[in-house]
Amino acid sequence: MEGFHELLARVQQEIVCLQFPFPPKSLYDPIEYVLSMGGKRLRPVLTLMSCNLFTDDLEDAIRPALGLEVFHNFTLLHDDLMDKADKRRNKSTVHKVWNANTAILSGDAMLIAAYRLIGETKPEFLKEVLDLFTVTALQICGGQQYDMEFESRMDVSVDEYMEMIRLKTGVLLACALKIGAIIGGASAKDAENLYQFGIQIGLAFQLQDDLLDVYGDTAIFGKSIGGDILCNKKTFLLINALKRSNEQQRENLQNWIEKKIFDPNEKISAVTHLYDELCLRELSESKIRECCNQAMNYLSRVDVTTDRKVCLEDLSSRLMNRNS
Amino acid sequence: MEGFHELLARVQQEIVCLQFPFPPKSLYDPIEYVLSMGGKRLRPVLTLMSCNLFTDDLEDAIRPALGLEVFHNFTLLHDDLMDKADKRRNKSTVHKVWNANTAILSGDAMLIAAYRLIGETKPEFLKEVLDLFTVTALQICGGQQYDMEFESRMDVSVDEYMEMIRLKTGVLLACALKIGAIIGGASAKDAENLYQFGIQIGLAFQLQDDLLDVYGDTAIFGKSIGGDILCNKKTFLLINALKRSNEQQRENLQNWIEKKIFDPNEKISAVTHLYDELCLRELSESKIRECCNQAMNYLSRVDVTTDRKVCLEDLSSRLMNRNS
Repeated sequence: MEGFHELLARVQQEIVCLQFPFPPKSLYDPIEYVLSMGGKRLRPVLTLMSCNLFTDDLEDAIRPALGLEVFHNFTLLHDDLMDKADKRRNKSTVHKVWNANTAILSGDAMLIAAYRLIGETKPEFLKEVLDLFTVTALQICGGQQYDMEFESRMDVSVDEYMEMIRLKTGVLLACALKIGAIIGGASAKDAENLYQFGIQIGLAFQLQDDLLDVYGDTAIFGKSIGGDILCNKKTFLLINALKRSNEQQRENLQNWIEKKIFDPNEKISAVTHLYDELCLRELSESKIRECCNQAMNYLSRVDVTTDRKVCLEDLSSRLMNRNS
Repeated sequence: MEGFHELLARVQQEIVCLQFPFPPKSLYDPIEYVLSMGGKRLRPVLTLMSCNLFTDDLEDAIRPALGLEVFHNFTLLHDDLMDKADKRRNKSTVHKVWNANTAILSGDAMLIAAYRLIGETKPEFLKEVLDLFTVTALQICGGQQYDMEFESRMDVSVDEYMEMIRLKTGVLLACALKIGAIIGGASAKDAENLYQFGIQIGLAFQLQDDLLDVYGDTAIFGKSIGGDILCNKKTFLLINALKRSNEQQRENLQNWIEKKIFDPNEKISAVTHLYDELCLRELSESKIRECCNQAMNYLSRVDVTTDRKVCLEDLSSRLMNRNS
């Protein structure tokens, strides 16, 4: 069995070695740029960890695991373009370094490159892995579509929000775990429990992300605090604030949301103050704990010895208590 | 054996029935819009015709054939966005009816939907078909990248142009034919000959397209005549004009290319006149004949009785002598 740091190191090393042997090079430069920007490499590590529950031979899982990382970075590339985000991980985004057309076309090539890696799955598992990946990819597009539609809506419910983050974040972690399980030779039941485990840590992960945007430490988080507040992003916090505020609080919040000209720090501080009054930090933390408990419940049902699960347990508790 | 019209009718009927069962519907509306815009349905028909060379049972080829049509329409969707084209087949393009973000995201979903159909290939052929499709898709992105890069270059050679159209148009027709052959149970040699046949008709098809833009009949062609001339598109004609013109002709051409303000009809007529002087219509037609001859040569090597090939021969000669 391999530990988190060994698996991460393996993934990092494989990403550096990824080759795009088709001309023109200019099509693949943005792909290499995006992949070199770093990131947690969470999805491929989850695939390898999940596979490692069932076998010590991880070779067959490496290429599909990389496919998931390439796919994830493709979604970031196109999402950043659609969101007009200038920075990602403190570096300029592709449409800023190059231009919008390059971001579109190299993104397309990146999605196809992800399929190329998924296509290297051992033939006996190819059909199942490919179908799961494709359905997951469509769900993620659906999640992004909901996310964009929520921008212009003020009546997004908590349930709709949870469904959106399930699609945008949950299903890819779940897919990563299930693909690892399939390739590791897991039973259908174990693979499905790992899938559900992934959904729950995905939800917890995204709720934690919303929380860090308001209550995180700028230096550690790597993004400015309050970004979501400034652009009125429909997060778990804002949706609950709109739902739980009294008439006066709601009018105040509505005012801040509609203001075109304002001092950013003033808006962040006013909205955070309202979140504090409504105890939304506690509400989020309790929802995160709920998802974590459900996740652990699914993991406990996976039919392997407890010592093999330590790695996944550690990783998920680290994700929930992270500050970046 | 089925004729062209039967195969086309089958493809049309299947396209209408395509289902996108994942929410949100708003993600798939642009996909249904694009697929309802019509088009020659050339790629899926080629897949079925090619399959039909080897077997009378075309069922297994239908879903992959549709995958190629969905993929082709995905490339049109994203290309139109990158080219800022307002119209396609006399209808407004997706980024005009909706917006750029919808064109990006629904395009991505469309690419994944194409993979979903390709993924329905019979397991025994899945790996080979998937690999071919993926390499082809990357080549097409490469072709689009070259095409965009050519816009700002004045030194594009005829060889570079031919390579660009091979990637942008040839490889998908070739892929369509080879996938049909594989699923029909063809030998590797026959599948490869059909692939090469496809490359040559793809080249001829694109050269014919360049020619129709200048010498076609607006009413039949469905696009305005001279569009390529107005935007200085590096076509086979313009590249050869730049190469073959004498000093005075070249200066004249260069002037028209650099002019920012001009009467469109005057520019079209002046550049067409230059093409006439340089006999570029004849040059193109001779190049098209060369590709057709090569195509027929490859088709003749395919090891099935001549009567089974009539359909493909007819279709390709119709493509070469088309006026729309």
